[in-house]
Amino acid sequence: MPSMEVWIEYASTYSYLTVARIGRLAAQLGVALDWQPFFLPPVREHQGLGFPFPEASAKTAHMWRDLERRADRLGVPYRRPSTYPVNSLPTARVALAGKQDGWCQRFTEEAFRLHWTQGCLIGTDDNLREALGTLGLDAAQVLQLANSPGNKEALKAQTPRAVERGIFGAPSFVVGNELFWGDDRLEDAFDWALTHG
Amino acid sequence: MPSMEVWIEYASTYSYLTVARIGRLAAQLGVALDWQPFFLPPVREHQGLGFPFPEASAKTAHMWRDLERRADRLGVPYRRPSTYPVNSLPTARVALAGKQDGWCQRFTEEAFRLHWTQGCLIGTDDNLREALGTLGLDAAQVLQLANSPGNKEALKAQTPRAVERGIFGAPSFVVGNELFWGDDRLEDAFDWALTHG
Repeated sequence: MPSMEVWIEYASTYSYLTVARIGRLAAQLGVALDWQPFFLPPVREHQGLGFPFPEASAKTAHMWRDLERRADRLGVPYRRPSTYPVNSLPTARVALAGKQDGWCQRFTEEAFRLHWTQGCLIGTDDNLREALGTLGLDAAQVLQLANSPGNKEALKAQTPRAVERGIFGAPSFVVGNELFWGDDRLEDAFDWALTHG
Repeated sequence: MPSMEVWIEYASTYSYLTVARIGRLAAQLGVALDWQPFFLPPVREHQGLGFPFPEASAKTAHMWRDLERRADRLGVPYRRPSTYPVNSLPTARVALAGKQDGWCQRFTEEAFRLHWTQGCLIGTDDNLREALGTLGLDAAQVLQLANSPGNKEALKAQTPRAVERGIFGAPSFVVGNELFWGDDRLEDAFDWALTHG
């Protein structure tokens, strides 16, 4: 079965469009997803890049309008959250902790859904607890694991792994040695996985 | 007939993917193209943005690989030019001069084709003269018009017009009040023109 690494930053706006549809697409196409939660800011710093969407810039204004139009085009529910950017670190830690137990994807989908359709912001305790509850997990236990020194180190270790792959933004998809950046390259990445993966 | 403004920067890599296919698509779909040659650097400066592809960055490495893959996917001939970025100012002036006489699109297609398939670089005299020659135009006469004070001022006046539309990159497409940025939004822009234009 061909496979694809999925590098998700939990504060990334376009990552939502990916998270909302990648699970269904991967199942339809028969591509295995290797989820790679990471924290983008130190990666961008390493790559010599600043924050991609400065407040009140024309680029940021386009991003919001484009996101709304793309969500509509892709059939993805969308309600603009009150806050941007959010602190995604706690969520990335939980998602990584869930990788070993196989619930990383379901948690990611639920955390993003709460943020982008219910106004329950990523990075808040409410979002974490509600997402974990929906999965039937013990939030206190998971949060203890997520905040353990070993898991924190594991998330830090994602930074050099991302840099090694040439990653500089999110979402990013890696198939073999090929890097695809952006939700608008998701189809290209799947096609590559199916033909070269 | 629905119409769409096409904002092209002649040094922009992704603009090539658009220029290579937009004419055929517009004719098939029945959308009129309103070509808007402009010079992007002062627009980005006004928007508080730097050069988008710093040399030797991971983002730039991805851009080149992505461009090659996209050209292949879209069926667009592609040979990576020796120089990036090029000085696009002389070409933008000629293209704008061609707008009033109706050959802006054909000149643009030819200038890009020479750059991206023949190694004859945009911004050089060779590129300008060969493109104009292919169109059966008198290069000396056109260059005199292109470098006239009136035409230089007309190109400068494109900067505030671009800013007014929220443009910050190229290619950009404008349909009514909707701005679409990037070759990967060309289909979205056409669909918008057909449904709302």
